[in-house]
Amino acid sequence: MTGKLKAPMVIVNFKTYLESTGVKAVELAKNAERVQAETSVSMAVAPQLGELATVAETVKIPVFAQHIDPIKPGGYTGHVLVESVKQAGAVGTLINHSERRLKLSDIDEAVRLARGNGLISCVCANNPSVSVAVAALKPDIVAVEPPELIGTGIPVSKAKPEIVTNTVKQVRKVNPDVVILCGAGITSGEDVSSALKLGTQGVLVASGIIKAKNPYAVMREFADAAKS
Amino acid sequence: MTGKLKAPMVIVNFKTYLESTGVKAVELAKNAERVQAETSVSMAVAPQLGELATVAETVKIPVFAQHIDPIKPGGYTGHVLVESVKQAGAVGTLINHSERRLKLSDIDEAVRLARGNGLISCVCANNPSVSVAVAALKPDIVAVEPPELIGTGIPVSKAKPEIVTNTVKQVRKVNPDVVILCGAGITSGEDVSSALKLGTQGVLVASGIIKAKNPYAVMREFADAAKS
Amino acid sequence: MTGKLKAPMVIVNFKTYLESTGVKAVELAKNAERVQAETSVSMAVAPQLGELATVAETVKIPVFAQHIDPIKPGGYTGHVLVESVKQAGAVGTLINHSERRLKLSDIDEAVRLARGNGLISCVCANNPSVSVAVAALKPDIVAVEPPELIGTGIPVSKAKPEIVTNTVKQVRKVNPDVVILCGAGITSGEDVSSALKLGTQGVLVASGIIKAKNPYAVMREFADAAKS
Amino acid sequence: MTGKLKAPMVIVNFKTYLESTGVKAVELAKNAERVQAETSVSMAVAPQLGELATVAETVKIPVFAQHIDPIKPGGYTGHVLVESVKQAGAVGTLINHSERRLKLSDIDEAVRLARGNGLISCVCANNPSVSVAVAALKPDIVAVEPPELIGTGIPVSKAKPEIVTNTVKQVRKVNPDVVILCGAGITSGEDVSSALKLGTQGVLVASGIIKAKNPYAVMREFADAAKS
Repeated sequence: MTGKLKAPMVIVNFKTYLESTGVKAVELAKNAERVQAETSVSMAVAPQLGELATVAETVKIPVFAQHIDPIKPGGYTGHVLVESVKQAGAVGTLINHSERRLKLSDIDEAVRLARGNGLISCVCANNPSVSVAVAALKPDIVAVEPPELIGTGIPVSKAKPEIVTNTVKQVRKVNPDVVILCGAGITSGEDVSSALKLGTQGVLVASGIIKAKNPYAVMREFADAAKS
Repeated sequence: MTGKLKAPMVIVNFKTYLESTGVKAVELAKNAERVQAETSVSMAVAPQLGELATVAETVKIPVFAQHIDPIKPGGYTGHVLVESVKQAGAVGTLINHSERRLKLSDIDEAVRLARGNGLISCVCANNPSVSVAVAALKPDIVAVEPPELIGTGIPVSKAKPEIVTNTVKQVRKVNPDVVILCGAGITSGEDVSSALKLGTQGVLVASGIIKAKNPYAVMREFADAAKS
Repeated sequence: MTGKLKAPMVIVNFKTYLESTGVKAVELAKNAERVQAETSVSMAVAPQLGELATVAETVKIPVFAQHIDPIKPGGYTGHVLVESVKQAGAVGTLINHSERRLKLSDIDEAVRLARGNGLISCVCANNPSVSVAVAALKPDIVAVEPPELIGTGIPVSKAKPEIVTNTVKQVRKVNPDVVILCGAGITSGEDVSSALKLGTQGVLVASGIIKAKNPYAVMREFADAAKS
Repeated sequence: MTGKLKAPMVIVNFKTYLESTGVKAVELAKNAERVQAETSVSMAVAPQLGELATVAETVKIPVFAQHIDPIKPGGYTGHVLVESVKQAGAVGTLINHSERRLKLSDIDEAVRLARGNGLISCVCANNPSVSVAVAALKPDIVAVEPPELIGTGIPVSKAKPEIVTNTVKQVRKVNPDVVILCGAGITSGEDVSSALKLGTQGVLVASGIIKAKNPYAVMREFADAAKS
């Protein structure tokens, strides 16, 4: 179940950069929406929670949270309740990003909560064996990102293509349906093409877009590459 | 520095109850604003991040975040950046609530970040010695809440008044300026009066208001008690 | 690879009870050794780290650590290095017990470290889907323990037999070789028999033995039941 | 209360280096004991838990744990129980080392548990304000170590002497009795002398000794410097 998200897809993780905070988050999201309108490639954005409602009100492309906590409504000050995220307009959520790793049982619970609330779950993994473990929990999307390449500009699809192909091969054995993305170090359309050729259905990207001089141009390049 | 917040004050922590999520968060905040308008007692609200921007746009009373992470802008997916919280409209933040306890060095860093960004910091503590430790970090507000009383309806000001008086006495030795609040189990105006008589400048409350049949009436009772 | 451990097996987790601390840990371990000598059923013990070396020097049955950290030698004050645990005499280690849950990527790394150092890895899981995820990481042993039953005296094999049978069925699809144990609430030989009939190769137990008036008698009852 | 530990003192944190694991831990501890015998300067050692009992049996100088958990006896698999650490022979424990930072309320509880069990508590802090917060919890020893200097060979007493003097000055205001140590980057006798001149009662050291070609010679140099 990935709703309006269709392969090939590009999910843009806004992280906590100043370039993607506040009004800049809204601007980025609008540019992503424009790229989708121009190319028909599925674009999604994952802003911080502080901007999530505003972004979701502004654009029609899918908006993701960056994290949810494995909690039910109650006394959990400072935690992220899936119901709140949904009411703020999110249609999906990242889970277990390498910068926000969770305990295994909490990933399991977060995936269940996302499913129970009709949110798309995109669970991140750092290598093939962890990707298979994640796939066993039946999320909608698995995104494999070797943490040592995140933010480096060295694309996983070039530096370690075997991580991507092994992930695809092994994940498919336990879960034929899950969408598989890859991420880390992706900065060019060529990197996106490579990722798709290695068997993925898209990419999860952050600094390659957020830190670019012209984020729109980079997103457009990614989408064009994904399309061809 | 507590800006528009003046003693005596009532800070309402929305936690992650369904009764304070989404549109209900906005409603609660409006009721708190109404109570302040009617009584001149300082009311502040701490909604979840998903509703923070919407609440802050709607009401003029101070809005707090429930938590910030000890991070600077960068690659911290799923974390809470003080700059984002501020741009969403918060004027303050809870730190180290008993349901979201932090490492000591992270509390120190979060207080610095709040100060550096002009946010009021309200750091929670579970007992007198921890309150003194917190006060040494020079936040704007210390809130002592024995976790075993949270959500019980047994007010700390009655069940364990010595926790409050010891906190006030010991905190004042190391920090004459910090605002001292107490919390846990507060459900009536009488509890608020007791808290003030024991030397605090107000209360931090949650379920006593959120779970009440008529939250407005309870907030009004609290404010009236605080005033007299 | 489970070395001297053969199915059916009983692994006794000493946890951090006073009844299994210090000299009492050594006594308990000796009783486990006696039961193995009398019944030929594989017994293993998992004392705290403070007693691990002493226990390992005293008995010949396999000794497990209760936890290892996902670290390599270096500056990790207060953490548990697999090399230290091994040199202290452990032949295996629990990983991800419900009272010491780990991040998914850390479980993956801990299993690799155990394997690389020749230690038997016994990874705990709280339900069938998490058990499958764990099995994908290729540990030597998976132990499924619903946390809500731990310490209750209500055996998982009776209260929720479907958790055990589903775990066995689903785990076998992704990993035909891993040893499967179950735990939580096991206090009688009958509970052990049920666990084996449901398809496991043994049990992971704690309070049922540690808190018994006569731990030797309970272990003997367990072993007799496992044998028949 | 620091028992047999007298100022000036040198506490050697073994961390999790291979050079201080297993039999090498015992060797290091013997060398520390020899230095104390030769110089009368108080030496203490903090080995990993796996070696703690063996080290404590072998040497007569004070042995510390590197960490204790804020728990009472019970079901806490994989945690560090103060009673176990004590029965293994420890007379003290590090708490909140920068490589094993704890939540503030857990430091408070760990200090209480150490005190209640007659163990010397040495709580680490990363800067002056955190040192004052720690001192408010009334441990026996506060050790200030700027984490950015740990393992660098650049001594805090030279690189940032104001951190040490500020810590001493501010800590003394809230706690006149606590022993104050400093650490990070200490590799020579001169560094130790500087630390004492800045108002501390000794040093907490690790790599400067553990990674030295001749740890005995370095410890002897430290002790000689501390004495003069």
